[in-house]
Amino acid sequence: MTESNYQLSSLPTYARKELRELVRSQLKALLEQADFKGAKAILQPVQEADIAEAIEGLPETMQVIAFRLLAKDEAIAVYEYLDSSVQQSLCEKFKRQEVIDIVDKMSPDDRAKLFDELPAVLVRRLLGELSPTEREATAQLLGYEASTAGRIMTPEYISLKESFTVTQALDRIRSLAKTTETIYSLYVTDAARSLTGILSLRDLVTSPLDKTVGEIMTREVISVQTGTDQEEVARLIQRYDFLAVPVVDREQRLVGIITVDDAIDILEQEAAKDIYALGGVQSGGDNYFQTDLITVARKRVVWLFVLLLTNTVTGSIIRAQEDLLQQVVALAAFIPLLTGTGGNVGAQSSTVVIRGLNTDEITAMGPMKIIVREGMAGALLGAILGTVATAWAYVLQGNLAVAIAVGLSLLAIAMLASIAGSALPFLFRSLGLDPALMSAPFITTAVDVLGVLIYFSLARLILQI
Amino acid sequence: MTESNYQLSSLPTYARKELRELVRSQLKALLEQADFKGAKAILQPVQEADIAEAIEGLPETMQVIAFRLLAKDEAIAVYEYLDSSVQQSLCEKFKRQEVIDIVDKMSPDDRAKLFDELPAVLVRRLLGELSPTEREATAQLLGYEASTAGRIMTPEYISLKESFTVTQALDRIRSLAKTTETIYSLYVTDAARSLTGILSLRDLVTSPLDKTVGEIMTREVISVQTGTDQEEVARLIQRYDFLAVPVVDREQRLVGIITVDDAIDILEQEAAKDIYALGGVQSGGDNYFQTDLITVARKRVVWLFVLLLTNTVTGSIIRAQEDLLQQVVALAAFIPLLTGTGGNVGAQSSTVVIRGLNTDEITAMGPMKIIVREGMAGALLGAILGTVATAWAYVLQGNLAVAIAVGLSLLAIAMLASIAGSALPFLFRSLGLDPALMSAPFITTAVDVLGVLIYFSLARLILQI
Repeated sequence: MTESNYQLSSLPTYARKELRELVRSQLKALLEQADFKGAKAILQPVQEADIAEAIEGLPETMQVIAFRLLAKDEAIAVYEYLDSSVQQSLCEKFKRQEVIDIVDKMSPDDRAKLFDELPAVLVRRLLGELSPTEREATAQLLGYEASTAGRIMTPEYISLKESFTVTQALDRIRSLAKTTETIYSLYVTDAARSLTGILSLRDLVTSPLDKTVGEIMTREVISVQTGTDQEEVARLIQRYDFLAVPVVDREQRLVGIITVDDAIDILEQEAAKDIYALGGVQSGGDNYFQTDLITVARKRVVWLFVLLLTNTVTGSIIRAQEDLLQQVVALAAFIPLLTGTGGNVGAQSSTVVIRGLNTDEITAMGPMKIIVREGMAGALLGAILGTVATAWAYVLQGNLAVAIAVGLSLLAIAMLASIAGSALPFLFRSLGLDPALMSAPFITTAVDVLGVLIYFSLARLILQI
Repeated sequence: MTESNYQLSSLPTYARKELRELVRSQLKALLEQADFKGAKAILQPVQEADIAEAIEGLPETMQVIAFRLLAKDEAIAVYEYLDSSVQQSLCEKFKRQEVIDIVDKMSPDDRAKLFDELPAVLVRRLLGELSPTEREATAQLLGYEASTAGRIMTPEYISLKESFTVTQALDRIRSLAKTTETIYSLYVTDAARSLTGILSLRDLVTSPLDKTVGEIMTREVISVQTGTDQEEVARLIQRYDFLAVPVVDREQRLVGIITVDDAIDILEQEAAKDIYALGGVQSGGDNYFQTDLITVARKRVVWLFVLLLTNTVTGSIIRAQEDLLQQVVALAAFIPLLTGTGGNVGAQSSTVVIRGLNTDEITAMGPMKIIVREGMAGALLGAILGTVATAWAYVLQGNLAVAIAVGLSLLAIAMLASIAGSALPFLFRSLGLDPALMSAPFITTAVDVLGVLIYFSLARLILQI
């Protein structure tokens, strides 16, 4: 975590955005003129996160040059802020020694993240060239499954012993402050490295100097396991307003911590995943605006093929009713209205349920209660829309039988859609599948196919064909 | 922010969720039996956030009783964790003195949040009964517009003077530690209360005791204005991994700070707003699972009426082509496929652009570049889907002319949809409207109406009718 924050000057945020734009365009212009001294000068007073953004905005060939202009320590800090796709492309262009220098100085959790993206051959070679302690720390993190606490934790925390006095503890913190992720959350371990308590720097600073750590620490600690899902960890930090949470292995030994800044990024990632899933786009970890067109198309085409298939089924149902349609062509005009409304009512229900599942807001009610409630909401919406649609259809076409068939179908479809929309996310969740990703295709299929069937059946019944 | 974290015991997170369920059901059972002593006993070792959740899960009549069982200090902490709808309903049931006691001890930012929800009469009465300093702090926060930095900031921060030595600064922190939101971010002001620098407790702890604050502080500070939008503040904290950011008024005087835990909640709210908007559900600040059925229906019906209107237009276009449909009934079968695919391609493009706009990921490219890129992606997807759909339609129906009309329409519609889907969010943004809320209805309308027109025109051209 960064605690000191400096900038060209104390600018309001809207001006800061323009400032970042300016840095980017100036940097590009100076590099194009090969004015490296000038480029170096304008980067000097800029925040590391902003330098990273400026570099990301450059053409690939210039990225390496701009990066090489940075002082060594700064280069490492900037590198950690870069998007992983840019990190990777830089890594492939660096000289061997440059890569080793950077990778050796990165923090173990960031390094594990980078190694995730690099080709396995390169990773093995790099791991071999790291200093032994760094190699061990990284190899350990890489041993945990992706998206778990073990993979995202940092092993750079401060641990204390119960017997330490406050003075001793403060001395230890002072000596370790430069190399740890945070000094505000402190962890107490016994001889077997088991976590026995935690305390905050606030606790320490407000206690008499001769008290021992064991006397002021909190013994009942909320911790997570190395295998805990990263989203669960982030929600825990959010729920209790923690600055960090300790990670223990199966033997309750402290192996790392996860800090609040990582929690924010995880929650953002998860929100993005849900948003993309709802929009029918597969999400990767990458920044979308840095991926190529083929990848973009590939991430969308699957969902579109599912719809193509669904629509073929719907289409063949419609075709099977050609006799009906030929007699009452007016019926065809309402098909988009019915499937469209059904799809939207279903999406509304599933959106609410999926969001509730992901944020744990839903736990207070059981699935049954929510499905019944959504079904009632669907019936209410269906009744309102059905009444309006019946009146409308009658005014437009003057065929009362068709108008009633449309209205009744709308009521039935809205109920069906809201029940399917609320029940399917629970079903997928219980099967261990991601509700956000799985629900939409199935809801669309169910609503389209069943909706059209209901419509034609009702129409035949009412029109007596 | 909470820094000490305690719990019944160090349970893995999955077990903690079950534990919360257990507390809730036990609490309810004990209250039903009027066993208040038992209820009090089971709440004793539970985290405040978890007590709040247990109370939220109770029927309304029991909420007041359960809340009254808590010790006074704990009651205030629990109250701050409660959902605002529950806070409000409790507030209306309390005795006058109870309310005053609680409200007086809440932190000013949480109190301002509560006052936002309560009826104006009650707020005026409560404000009158607060102690003068608390009244002033709250009235000040209430003076700022909702969703701005001024409204969500806390005035409880630690300010230092440049002339303080490290020892003096540490003494001041020790004396203020109990009443401030955080002691890790420290703010330096001059005689005019202007913010002149910041430093972290880490800086202080690692500096020699005889240095002055002026010597170790950072002079270039990133700050926000009271009027800055809350989402912008949260993104700033996320971007730079800050623990807190200072808020200044127009005269650069320090008036408050916003901490990282508030930033997480804001980002979650904003993500929820986008998710709901994409799902066609209006979002309020409330927890959806605590609102009644009428409100639920009201939040959805607007969007459904927009669709009804769109579909009526589409429907009348279809009706206008009755002569064509009567001659080639097969054409009707593909209408859902075309409007469905168009809607989905449009949703994919707008999802990506809206997310990019909201997270500022998009700034590196201009709007034109993104719209062109999306148009190309749409053309690529349209070509793939069009080819498949043509082959499929031919196999299914054996009518080559219809199959070609379907394929070509799909190509045209996919391009149209992706361009509309990427351009409209930019348009609404530049008009000062929320892209997430406004884009979907307009994209659906454009794609449905124009899509059907394209289809019929192409069909007439190819079939020569």
